[in-house]
Order: sequence, then C-alpha cells, then structure tokens
Amino acid sequence: MKLSKAFIPTLKEVPADAVITSHKLMIRSGMIRPLTAGVYSFLPLGYRVIKKIIDIVREEMDSIGAQEFFLPALNPIELWEQTDRVKAFGDTMYHVKNRPYVLAPTHEEVIAHIAKNHIQSYKDMPQVWYQVQTKFRNEARPRSGVIRSRQFFMKDAYSLDSSWEGLDKSYNDQHEAYKKIFTRCGIKFFVVGASSGAMGGNKSQEFMVESNAGEDTCALCDKCGYAANVEVATSKKEKIGKRGESKSIEKIHTPNIKTIDELCSFLKITPDDCAKAVVYFYQVEDKWEPVLIFMSGNDELNESKLTSVLGCQVVPAKPEELFDIFGANAGSLGPINIKKKIKIIADKRLEGANNLYSGANEDDYHLSGIDFERDVKVDGYYDLRTVIEGEACPDCGTPLRIVKAIELGHIFKLGTKYSEGLQANFLDEKGEEKPIIMGSYGIGIERVCACYIEQNNDEYGIIWNKALAPYLVSLIAVNSNVKEVMQKSEEIYNLLVKKNIDTVYDDRVGVSPGFKFKDADLIGIPLQVLVSEKNLKNGKIEIKIRRTGERKLFDQDKIIESIENILKEID
Amino acid sequence: MKLSKAFIPTLKEVPADAVITSHKLMIRSGMIRPLTAGVYSFLPLGYRVIKKIIDIVREEMDSIGAQEFFLPALNPIELWEQTDRVKAFGDTMYHVKNRPYVLAPTHEEVIAHIAKNHIQSYKDMPQVWYQVQTKFRNEARPRSGVIRSRQFFMKDAYSLDSSWEGLDKSYNDQHEAYKKIFTRCGIKFFVVGASSGAMGGNKSQEFMVESNAGEDTCALCDKCGYAANVEVATSKKEKIGKRGESKSIEKIHTPNIKTIDELCSFLKITPDDCAKAVVYFYQVEDKWEPVLIFMSGNDELNESKLTSVLGCQVVPAKPEELFDIFGANAGSLGPINIKKKIKIIADKRLEGANNLYSGANEDDYHLSGIDFERDVKVDGYYDLRTVIEGEACPDCGTPLRIVKAIELGHIFKLGTKYSEGLQANFLDEKGEEKPIIMGSYGIGIERVCACYIEQNNDEYGIIWNKALAPYLVSLIAVNSNVKEVMQKSEEIYNLLVKKNIDTVYDDRVGVSPGFKFKDADLIGIPLQVLVSEKNLKNGKIEIKIRRTGERKLFDQDKIIESIENILKEID
Repeated sequence: MKLSKAFIPTLKEVPADAVITSHKLMIRSGMIRPLTAGVYSFLPLGYRVIKKIIDIVREEMDSIGAQEFFLPALNPIELWEQTDRVKAFGDTMYHVKNRPYVLAPTHEEVIAHIAKNHIQSYKDMPQVWYQVQTKFRNEARPRSGVIRSRQFFMKDAYSLDSSWEGLDKSYNDQHEAYKKIFTRCGIKFFVVGASSGAMGGNKSQEFMVESNAGEDTCALCDKCGYAANVEVATSKKEKIGKRGESKSIEKIHTPNIKTIDELCSFLKITPDDCAKAVVYFYQVEDKWEPVLIFMSGNDELNESKLTSVLGCQVVPAKPEELFDIFGANAGSLGPINIKKKIKIIADKRLEGANNLYSGANEDDYHLSGIDFERDVKVDGYYDLRTVIEGEACPDCGTPLRIVKAIELGHIFKLGTKYSEGLQANFLDEKGEEKPIIMGSYGIGIERVCACYIEQNNDEYGIIWNKALAPYLVSLIAVNSNVKEVMQKSEEIYNLLVKKNIDTVYDDRVGVSPGFKFKDADLIGIPLQVLVSEKNLKNGKIEIKIRRTGERKLFDQDKIIESIENILKEID
Repeated sequence: MKLSKAFIPTLKEVPADAVITSHKLMIRSGMIRPLTAGVYSFLPLGYRVIKKIIDIVREEMDSIGAQEFFLPALNPIELWEQTDRVKAFGDTMYHVKNRPYVLAPTHEEVIAHIAKNHIQSYKDMPQVWYQVQTKFRNEARPRSGVIRSRQFFMKDAYSLDSSWEGLDKSYNDQHEAYKKIFTRCGIKFFVVGASSGAMGGNKSQEFMVESNAGEDTCALCDKCGYAANVEVATSKKEKIGKRGESKSIEKIHTPNIKTIDELCSFLKITPDDCAKAVVYFYQVEDKWEPVLIFMSGNDELNESKLTSVLGCQVVPAKPEELFDIFGANAGSLGPINIKKKIKIIADKRLEGANNLYSGANEDDYHLSGIDFERDVKVDGYYDLRTVIEGEACPDCGTPLRIVKAIELGHIFKLGTKYSEGLQANFLDEKGEEKPIIMGSYGIGIERVCACYIEQNNDEYGIIWNKALAPYLVSLIAVNSNVKEVMQKSEEIYNLLVKKNIDTVYDDRVGVSPGFKFKDADLIGIPLQVLVSEKNLKNGKIEIKIRRTGERKLFDQDKIIESIENILKEID
C-alpha cells in the first residue's frame, strides 16, 4: 500500500480524552476513530491488526476441533426471559424499540436453543462451537478506548458435554488454546481464578495482562504462582479467635464516633478488637431484603464474594435506609438489639471471636464484650474479605502482590444453568434425560490489540511484532524530490509486493524526511527500509529494526534478500 | 472434518415455511437455522461458504485499491437526522430503546462523517473504503430465507472523489470488480439500469440473477442487450397524439362504470381513447399533498418512476380520501372540474393527446372530447408507465422479455447528497470549498450464496463448485462395519488433510450406505470418494463427480493423485 493513496490519518497531538497509552497510540497512528462515546470505527490500519488476531484465534480454535458458527445479534427477548437474564443484564443489554428484540451481549441462550433442537443423545457430544463477531453492551461508562466499549469483537466458544469429565476436557482444551493464542500474539499474560459472577457455573479463570490501565485487581504470589482475581483471592490472614475469658456486654458512650479508626483511637483499642457492620440488600424472588454483614476491624467486604455466597444480585444499603431497620444510623450499628428480624452473616475471621466492640444500634453508643458465639445468631460464616497487599499467600505463605490487570479472556465451567433454563436435554447411556453440561469461553479481540500495544511501545509509538503487524515492512523514499530515490523505492516496492511481503510504502511527495520517520515510528512496522540520496550514492540502503532501533546499511542489489533475512530473525 | 464429530444437522423433510429451493436446501443441508422470523444462525457448513464468498469479495476489492474498514453498527441518531434519513428509513431502521442509537442499515453517514474530519484537499482523494459486516433492517415481511432477512452480511464500499470524472472511474472500477466477483462465484448474472430510490444520486445499476424467486422485475432485450429494472425500464410504446380535430367536451351518464375496461365495453371505445386518473400523496416538507396523475388507458403507473419525478416519498391515496378532494369517488375522477387546487402530472404518452374520455369528477358520469393541451393544466409530462412484456426495446425495437430477478448487488453514483448533509467538504485546485463526490456500492453476501444454490441444484441437493464449496472432497466409508473399509478411509482422510484438501469424512458407524449417499448428495461437495468393501477387494476406490453424476474406479494406491487430477479438471 502506498501512503500517498492510503487512508492512515496519523496525528501528532495526543487526543484530549485518551488517558491510557494504547488508546492514545491507536488514535494517533490512525488505527481507530471514535464515532460516539465507547463506539469506534476501525480504519484500515487498525482493522488489519484485528484480522490478524482473528486469524490466530480461528487457527487455534480449529485445531482443538471447535466449529465456527455465526449467530445473530438480533435475539428475540423471550429467549433471554427463559434464563432470567433480561433482569440480570438490566440496562447493560440493548433493547430494540421497534421489535421485541435485544442485541446479544453473549450467546449462551442461542447456543442452548440450537442444542435443544439438535442434540438428542450423548452420542452427539462433545461439541465445541465458536464464533468471532460483534457483541453489544450498553456500558454506562465506556473508557480506555477499545478496552471497554459499547460494541466490540469477541471470540465466544461454547462446549456441550454429556459428562462433567467431558466438560473438564473441553475446558482444558480451551485453556491450552488460550495460552497458545496469547503467546502467538506476543502478549505477557497470567491466569487467575475468578468469580463466575452473573454467568453462573462452578469454576472460572481469567487470562490477565498486568497493567495500570486495568480495571481488575489480582493477587499474585511470585514464589508459588498462586494467582487470583481479588474477587475470589484468599490469604492466610489468621482468625481473631478467643482472647481470654468472655466479658459481659457493656454500653459505652461514644459521641460522634463513626468509623473503626475513630473508635480505636477513642477507646485505645485495635481494629482486631472490633466487628464492623455493613448492610446490603439482596434479591429474594422479586423482593429486596436487607442482610447485615460483620467484618473484622477494617477488613473490606468483597462484593463479588457476597454475591457468590448469597447467589443473587446485591446492592449496598443507602445511609437513609438504615434507621428504619436498626433504630440507629451508620457508624452505630451492631449485632445486639436489632429492631427488626434480619439475616446476619459474618466473615470467617470472626468465627468464635469474643470480647469485641461493635455499634449499640443506638446513635453515639457502642457495646463492648461481644462474644459472637454467645451473643449473636449468625446465619453463616464465610470468606467475605478482600485480600490486601503483603498478606500471606494461601498456598505457600509468601507475601502476596496486588496488581491491576486487564482481562483478555475468561473461561467458565457453566454446568447446566442454561441447558436447564432452555430445556436443552439429552439421553444418556441409560436412556435417561439429562441437561447438557455447558462451558463458555470468551476472548475480547480488541483487548488483545490494546494490551499488546500497552506492552510494546516507546516514546515514539507502537512496536509491532510480525504476528500482529499490519504490514511487515515500512519502505520510505526519504528524499522524495530526488528522482533516483523515487525510482529505486518504487522498484523495491514492486519486488516486495511480488514476494507477498506486506509493505507500506511512504511515497509521499513534499513530505519531509523527519515527518516520514516520525510517522513510521508511530505506526511501528517491524522493519523500516530507508532509501536515501546519500546512501544510494554509495549503492547502499539502510534498514532499521523498529524494536531495537538498530540500523545497518545493505547493498542495494541485495536489499530484498537482506529484508527477508532480517524478517526471519526478528520476532 | 469427521462427520461423527461435525455438527451438520441434515434433514430429510422439507421445512414447512420454506418456499424457494435455496431456502429449503440451506435448511436441509444444515447450513442455517432460523432463530426467529427473518433472523438466521449460520451453522458451520453454511458459514464456511459465507467465508469463501467474503474472501473472494475482499480479494477483488483489494485489487482495485479499496481499503477495508470496520464501521460500528451502533450509530448516534443525530448523524442520520443530518441527512434526513431517520424519516426516509422509517420503521425499516432499528432504533435502540435505552440509548439514542439506531442500528446502521447502511453506512453513507458514517463514511461522510469520517471524510468530513479527515479529507481536506483534492490531493487526499480518490479514496475507496469498504467493509464486510452485519447490516440490520427491520423488514416488515422477511421471506425467501436469507434473501430477505432482518440482519445480513453486506459488502458495502464507498468512493470519495474530487471530480465527476473521478466518480465515473471509481464507479467503473466497482462495476468491473463486481463482474469478476460474481463470475468467480460461478453465478450467471446480468446488469440492469436501476432506480436510485431513497439512496439518491444520479445513476445506479443492479447486478441481477434471473429467478422466479426474485422480488425484482426486469425488462431484457435478448438482441441488443438492453436491460433495466422495470422501475426505470422504457420501451418504444408510441404516444397517443392528436386523433382528428378536437371535439368539444360532452358529459355522458355511465352508471356503475368504474374501470377502463368497463368504460371501453360500455362506450365501445379502446383503452387508447381513455385517460386514467390515479391519486397519490407526496411529501412536501412535513406535509402530505395530493397529486393527480393521468395515465393512458390501462397503462400501469410505476411508483418508482413517480418517486424519482417528485423526488420524495409517495403513498397511494385511499378510496375514502378521494371524495373530499374531487367531489367524486374512484372510477369517476378526471382532469376537468376538480373541487380543489391540485398538482397534476401525466405520462408522456398523453402529451398532446385529444378526444379522450375520462371521469367527470361526479359519480356515474364521464366526459368525452378532452384535449389535454386545450383543457388541462398539466404541471409536467413524464415517463411514468411500467413497461410490459413484448413491447419494443427502446434501443433496437426487438420485443422485450420481462423476467423476475434477485438483486445481488447495487452500485450508485451518489453525488453530493451525503457530503452536503454532513458538510464533508474539500478544497479543490483553486482553493475553493466543494462537497466530496460520493459513490456507494453494495453486495448482499448471503444472496450470492442463495442465488448460487438457486442456479446449481438438482432433485438430490446442492451442487457446489470449487470456489464456494464448504469442502472439496466428501470421503465416504461406505461399509462402516468392515474394518478394511474404515482403515483405508482413515488413511485417505489423513493424506487429504496433510495435502490441505478440505475434506468432510463420513466415518459414521451404524449409518447405512444409502443414508450416507443421500447426505453427500444433499450437501453437494464437488467430489465424492466412495470407499466400499466390494471395490476394495479389487484394489479399487470409486470417485463420483457430484455435478455430472459420473462415476469411475481408480487404483487405491493412486487415489490421492486421482483426486488431485479430477479437482484440477472440474469447475
């Protein structure tokens, strides 16, 4: 492609709304343009990269025997009502105004619908079905460029099995394929245990890229390799336990004391002496009921863990909703003398703890001497806390690191949630009807592109590897006013085209060498071939490797061979 | 792909709602399944064909220098308001309920929006931008399977030029590329002049496939090659003209006479003696105004031509709306004594005609002796009639054939409608600001597939050519209970896979030979390789060419070479 004819609108300026590096560089290099908030047009250069990623994904899916579908974005809303996900997705799913359709944010329902009609027997399985196509999600706050956008490319695969062992195999196949895909793309990633969230199911893992631009937080052990999303991560943080003989409960006047820190400094105690009350609402059928949760001291309640424990959506109570339930306001709530009957759960660290301080359910008062076993009717103790930096790895005890990360892919053992919802059953070896056992496996295609750029750039622009590069060679006619330079460049371009070496040729006339070099570095093609007047006089042409900055002169007569050789050597 | 593992759900029965051949065969061969009315899932076999068509389209677009984009389906509604197409598309465009978006049924607006921001000078053009992606149209009556559906794949290309000559070149490039694409796909097609309709612009052509399943009607001259959609087709049908001296107007009692035929038989006159009145409403800004149209005798008014003449949407008046305007009902309307002031236009055949009969604008009365020139204030004479079978070709006079056809592609010289609407301007050589001159070029990808099947099938199923075939070879282990057959088949399969010859291998155990043959014929892979016990005993393997039914035995040791040779020979 000749730059004089190509549409690659590079920008010198950093776009005002772009915060993270990949977003800035994708805009500046002319890969994408926003159409409206969270909605991007892929321009030719950007779409070339997307197609390369899709090709890699397809090859690895095909190689594990997955079969490619293309399922409709327009979905009848009834299908989603059968699995109760119209409610679960809420405003995140787009609804069509002039037809009872939704735009599919994922395709478990359609897959189960097709399986219901066509999978009759255990002999028809295993099946692994996948597709690569546009998904639609009405993100309230789209951000970070293509990383969180309102329509995006997704590879979504679904496995159908007749046994749990079959699901294990299908899941592992995807797990291995994902590792190959991200490795081939040249991305440094790690895998973490994750929460299944609204998808349901009993196991899930995420493929993550460490990045300050990430919206996920993960706990990593550099020693034993333990890695988990903080949504599910645990640590060896010890229980509070029994501390001496249980005292009796005493009421203490604590004027204007609201937080654990204030309470500790007022009473000269430590956070371990305190039980913090947190109130949420959870959904029981169509009603929202309050639940009172106790955490030790300043431990942070983890909403994902709470969701998993309660098995439904949860929302934090608002301050103004508390008085009606407790007869007291936030900061004075506790486990004793609650006005109304309410579900109470507590973090595992509080199990068996005594001599605790907590709110008195009366403004400006706290109680001391609380023994959870003796005084509180707790419905269950669960792991509800958020792990923090430096806590001991649950497997080996080494201090955990907490890092920000971007989720590239997520694999789920779904189980039978969707097949039960849509009656997608099969007959097993004994002729008994059973729900199909499903798995679901997603990759955000644009995220692969953005994460690659996050990991491969410098102050001048993007640094592509061969696997994802939109072109392999960036041929530059340095002095466009010199006839010999233009002739030689044109000649090399034609030879490269003939050899099927994807080349972008900067043949622009009246553009300064400096401007051409800047554009080439910004776009980041692996090899730059620089045809200049000065070197041509000595029969030489310069090649620059974008990643290392290394430059070397080659005989003009052997330039194609030299290009081919260097291309073989570099990543 | 082994059939024992593949998801290719073939059906013996013809699906109840499928009327046309391609629809029946795409369902029966397991290429597609409906999800809801007009919305289809592509199953693996069907999607393989779609990808092959897309690859051909991409190659031909790339070879004329078109650059591939991927533009969002989610479009802010404001963009469409700027070109007034929210109204023009009406209910055919999907609107999103929970965000002010529409789903793009085409992308002229987004293209003009990008051009506005990035094309500054005549030096930045020509540009040809294309994409292949899902389009959304809320068809009121989806039908004929994937031929008229509510979401579909479309290749849409757009040219941006600084001159009308440039547009001519871009348009011709697309024209030539389209011919190559359809020819490579193995489709018999013809090109017709067409109406630009709601797209606007001054020239358009359609690429058509003759088919009784078609919704378009075309006039063809087998002698000189004249071809036009009846929306714009003309013929050498002569004018009525002056017939003798103009008589004076007389009122005739015509009780219960409503139609031209009734009038002719009642008064013993011919249709050429009559002027038929037709009433439409047309849109002037936000109001709908009536227009009275006169046609000669039984000539049929062509709504597309009327739309082009008036340059806006039109709808036929309802019978109950007529009396208020004319003081008479349908069947008694005419050009004289109209109650209200109204726009009047007439077909060219009536220009200068005299001694005509028409309604008296009084129920049960007609007038004779009407001279259009003398008696009627006509706002203009236009070609408004629909050509019919056997009329003389406008170019050579040969009788025209009228055929039904399916539109595969449509190319438009748009001009400046969209660039003006979205202020996509450029500076010309003199530094003057001008609107970019646009063209728009579409191909319905599924239609290529369906039309191919319409033209290539027999009573047993589909007959694929190599270009579109989902697999090239259908390898059949005929006697699955015979060990040698299974071993030999497996061996051949592995060799074919190694040679990258796409093969579907019917390795199913417990499925009868007859059933396997029927499935193979239905799916229609070009070559069938039949490994049977009987022939293996003689060291032979049979190859059947699906299109011709030709069968021949080959040495089992040379079977791969034989397959390769036959594949070279056939289409």
